[in-house]
Amino acid sequence: MSRYILRGTCPDDKGIVAALTTMMAANGANVLDLTQHTASDVNVFMLKTLFEVPTPFNRDLFEKAFKVVATKFKMAWELHDISRNERVAILVSKTNHCLWELLLKHQDGEIECEIPLIVSNHPDNRRIAEQFEIPFHHIDYKSGKDAAEEKIQRLLKSYEINLVVMARFMQILSPEFIRSWKNRIINIHHGFLPSFTGAKPYHQAWHKGVKIIGATAHFANELLDLGPIIAQEVIHVSDLSSINHLIQIGKDVERQTLVNAIKLYLSHSIFTYKNRTFILR
Amino acid sequence: MSRYILRGTCPDDKGIVAALTTMMAANGANVLDLTQHTASDVNVFMLKTLFEVPTPFNRDLFEKAFKVVATKFKMAWELHDISRNERVAILVSKTNHCLWELLLKHQDGEIECEIPLIVSNHPDNRRIAEQFEIPFHHIDYKSGKDAAEEKIQRLLKSYEINLVVMARFMQILSPEFIRSWKNRIINIHHGFLPSFTGAKPYHQAWHKGVKIIGATAHFANELLDLGPIIAQEVIHVSDLSSINHLIQIGKDVERQTLVNAIKLYLSHSIFTYKNRTFILR
Amino acid sequence: MSRYILRGTCPDDKGIVAALTTMMAANGANVLDLTQHTASDVNVFMLKTLFEVPTPFNRDLFEKAFKVVATKFKMAWELHDISRNERVAILVSKTNHCLWELLLKHQDGEIECEIPLIVSNHPDNRRIAEQFEIPFHHIDYKSGKDAAEEKIQRLLKSYEINLVVMARFMQILSPEFIRSWKNRIINIHHGFLPSFTGAKPYHQAWHKGVKIIGATAHFANELLDLGPIIAQEVIHVSDLSSINHLIQIGKDVERQTLVNAIKLYLSHSIFTYKNRTFILR
Amino acid sequence: MSRYILRGTCPDDKGIVAALTTMMAANGANVLDLTQHTASDVNVFMLKTLFEVPTPFNRDLFEKAFKVVATKFKMAWELHDISRNERVAILVSKTNHCLWELLLKHQDGEIECEIPLIVSNHPDNRRIAEQFEIPFHHIDYKSGKDAAEEKIQRLLKSYEINLVVMARFMQILSPEFIRSWKNRIINIHHGFLPSFTGAKPYHQAWHKGVKIIGATAHFANELLDLGPIIAQEVIHVSDLSSINHLIQIGKDVERQTLVNAIKLYLSHSIFTYKNRTFILR
Repeated sequence: MSRYILRGTCPDDKGIVAALTTMMAANGANVLDLTQHTASDVNVFMLKTLFEVPTPFNRDLFEKAFKVVATKFKMAWELHDISRNERVAILVSKTNHCLWELLLKHQDGEIECEIPLIVSNHPDNRRIAEQFEIPFHHIDYKSGKDAAEEKIQRLLKSYEINLVVMARFMQILSPEFIRSWKNRIINIHHGFLPSFTGAKPYHQAWHKGVKIIGATAHFANELLDLGPIIAQEVIHVSDLSSINHLIQIGKDVERQTLVNAIKLYLSHSIFTYKNRTFILR
Repeated sequence: MSRYILRGTCPDDKGIVAALTTMMAANGANVLDLTQHTASDVNVFMLKTLFEVPTPFNRDLFEKAFKVVATKFKMAWELHDISRNERVAILVSKTNHCLWELLLKHQDGEIECEIPLIVSNHPDNRRIAEQFEIPFHHIDYKSGKDAAEEKIQRLLKSYEINLVVMARFMQILSPEFIRSWKNRIINIHHGFLPSFTGAKPYHQAWHKGVKIIGATAHFANELLDLGPIIAQEVIHVSDLSSINHLIQIGKDVERQTLVNAIKLYLSHSIFTYKNRTFILR
Repeated sequence: MSRYILRGTCPDDKGIVAALTTMMAANGANVLDLTQHTASDVNVFMLKTLFEVPTPFNRDLFEKAFKVVATKFKMAWELHDISRNERVAILVSKTNHCLWELLLKHQDGEIECEIPLIVSNHPDNRRIAEQFEIPFHHIDYKSGKDAAEEKIQRLLKSYEINLVVMARFMQILSPEFIRSWKNRIINIHHGFLPSFTGAKPYHQAWHKGVKIIGATAHFANELLDLGPIIAQEVIHVSDLSSINHLIQIGKDVERQTLVNAIKLYLSHSIFTYKNRTFILR
Repeated sequence: MSRYILRGTCPDDKGIVAALTTMMAANGANVLDLTQHTASDVNVFMLKTLFEVPTPFNRDLFEKAFKVVATKFKMAWELHDISRNERVAILVSKTNHCLWELLLKHQDGEIECEIPLIVSNHPDNRRIAEQFEIPFHHIDYKSGKDAAEEKIQRLLKSYEINLVVMARFMQILSPEFIRSWKNRIINIHHGFLPSFTGAKPYHQAWHKGVKIIGATAHFANELLDLGPIIAQEVIHVSDLSSINHLIQIGKDVERQTLVNAIKLYLSHSIFTYKNRTFILR
């Protein structure tokens, strides 16, 4: 037996679940898990289902049968073989609490994927990468962003990367780069978006006297820090905290939020609609 | 069109979702919403689905078709017509923050049910009931618990009550009473169970120096405060809080937890298994 | 014996606490409680102390002695007789969950102040005010904002109000009005500021797909929704929530945040510095 | 200038703060920070103050002057030179998420102390200790608990340890061991005490169907898992979580709670009274 995840989204209509599950049953698929949501404010139907099929699985035949249903409901869809791990690259600069978190949780089996590549614009974190026996590439930005991004793109391609994680990567990616990885770059912003975009969010937060700080993991888009939000976490802070204390507290929130977002991605739980996401666990 | 909720639970097996949705489609039911969970630690399958059928709906025919599937999978099931509101009775003593909360949220349309009856072992809260134009019955416990409970049972019957809510009712119900309303009495315990059962949980919590207090809404069972937990909420408390301050903070947590539990009941989201619940939203 | 709260704030310096407590001891004041904070990012010293003095208390003499210390350290200060309750007016429109919360918690003794006046631009909530036997004044805005605000100002004066609470008051106060009540008008904004200022924050939040919503209680200032923040609360929301569901969830967060802010005000715990507050409990 | 923390606790009385601060000012101490709390439920006064004195500081003279005040009020007290770091030993078994957390946060400067010693009843985590260049001692329990504990005691002595942290150490320390380190051993219990003492708390929690899980850091005492609580954290869990998922989620809560407790200890913020603590930040 092998297992697949099928995801579909379309304008809301009657009979979608019945049509889908009937088609699946007719094609030998046993539904193990099914989550479905209709966003009634915008009339959008979303469905995610985990199913089992006998091996060998004739995927072509299944897809053909499925397309009949999909066409009827104008459904956008994806089919994922869950035995195949995603291949994730980490981009990082000097600050390394997110890098440590990803590598430790990956080693612990909590984040299930391959991490075959770490890229950095600084050499500082090479030793950490080596400890986990992951190839580390230092890409110098001194010869310009274009050259650097070209090198990164080549690395991502040669390592067959599916998902790029910016784990506190302090370079702004070009719009071209981002477009070529649409909804496949996850960034961690160290602020509770949309409150504090841009630089030094903890300084902004302190001067505004907010009572709660947070972090936001989102897909990178051309508008810096304004891509679809995937996960957010917050923590109450005392007014007796200094800016430095906020930064320290924030680190825990950042790494937790980034891990949550990556897990949601790897479990195929993120649906995007216009500039927002819907999470279907 | 009319809408129903179907809930089923059985030992885990293959093909349950497909069999169910196929049967439903064949009988004119359009699935609007479907949530399903398999508790793999105990191999229990649970499913809740909201569906729409053309009126007039031949419920008997539908149930007959459904029973074939249910029998095959040894499924316990319920079918709820969601146009029919549950009828809820509130039991209360003197403390009235939970009573206020229920009545205000009911008036606001947030708690969707009928509240045709308030019963109390004290006359104090009659005026509140009157404001909301709800019949209030003062049952004196001076002539003994047996007599009092008999009167309450008669009231519950005559008002055709489906759910009993103990909104800080300070009398212990007899095992016979509780058995006759199994999994249909919701109690709010002013402690984070199973930490502090019994009396004066905030005093216990203060002397233990816990850093977090909470409240627990649960089905009443014969073992006081140990019935299946439906909802829990907590709040961090400062060590600078006095016992009285804990009691005051606790009131907000209690009313919120009780409301959450009632909403889960009314939306048919609570599955019980042995002495615990599973919430399927 | 009678009790006072003394609050002072000044540029940070050496020996402030010693100078103050020495002066207090020399003038018969017994310190019951003392909280002190130095915001090292901006070098600002803040102190709040509760003390007891024998009656009759020669307040003039005490203030005279205190001013010597205050002058030395360039300290801004306030002295509050805690036996005198603040007099709070509530401004409200149609939505009444915050109004109910304030009146119930006031009746319960949780909010310690006088509430001698409720003002509204709609007649709808008169019955609630009457239940709690509080004068209710309906101010019609049809004859213009200037006339309406003049009437409100006259009411606030005649009822000797110290603090104005906007409990979902849907009129924008003029800059003149706000200036005349600087740092004495508390507003509840139904969004997690500074994220969603302005109208319909829950609609904005839904379309942005935020995973957490919140409410912010702040002092009103001339820049709408941007005055110093006093209290904030948040709650995680599921992406399966509709806009209406967000609005409903938000109500609980709003009333809780507003109550928290009012309690902080009444306990003299709010220090303002530029456009932020510091809370010293 | 050098900095000290003075902590005192005694039965509540009048004039304690004034007497103390007057004495301190008279002896050249400049108060930088002062926190004071009276637990009115038990009439206990607590005070913690950070002060600065010119160097060289005649500590003997200061203590002599202080003892006059302390004697008058029957005050138990401590004086800490904050330039001297505490020396912390970590006890660990196989599970290492808490160990990693402590070492990374120590390396990052967030936990300010010396960590000169790691002791384990298993050899597994030696490599981690080596990475951080901290001596690692494997103590085999096969030759009996008495022999093992004797070796540990000797190590603690030779490394001049002040605080022992049980970072998931799966051996039960003997009452004699614990008595010799009273209120200087911090243990992390992977449950929200007092709910689930003893073994397999996540299994207990799952079968009880609790909606919130937590972790508790406490001083070890002779009654396993029942020593004074220092810090607690909780997290809402979905009923769709398996026991293994609870264990995974719990790890994050455990490491966070343990770090919080250690920081409170190192900042001299923990006061114990009977079997509870009071945290004065």
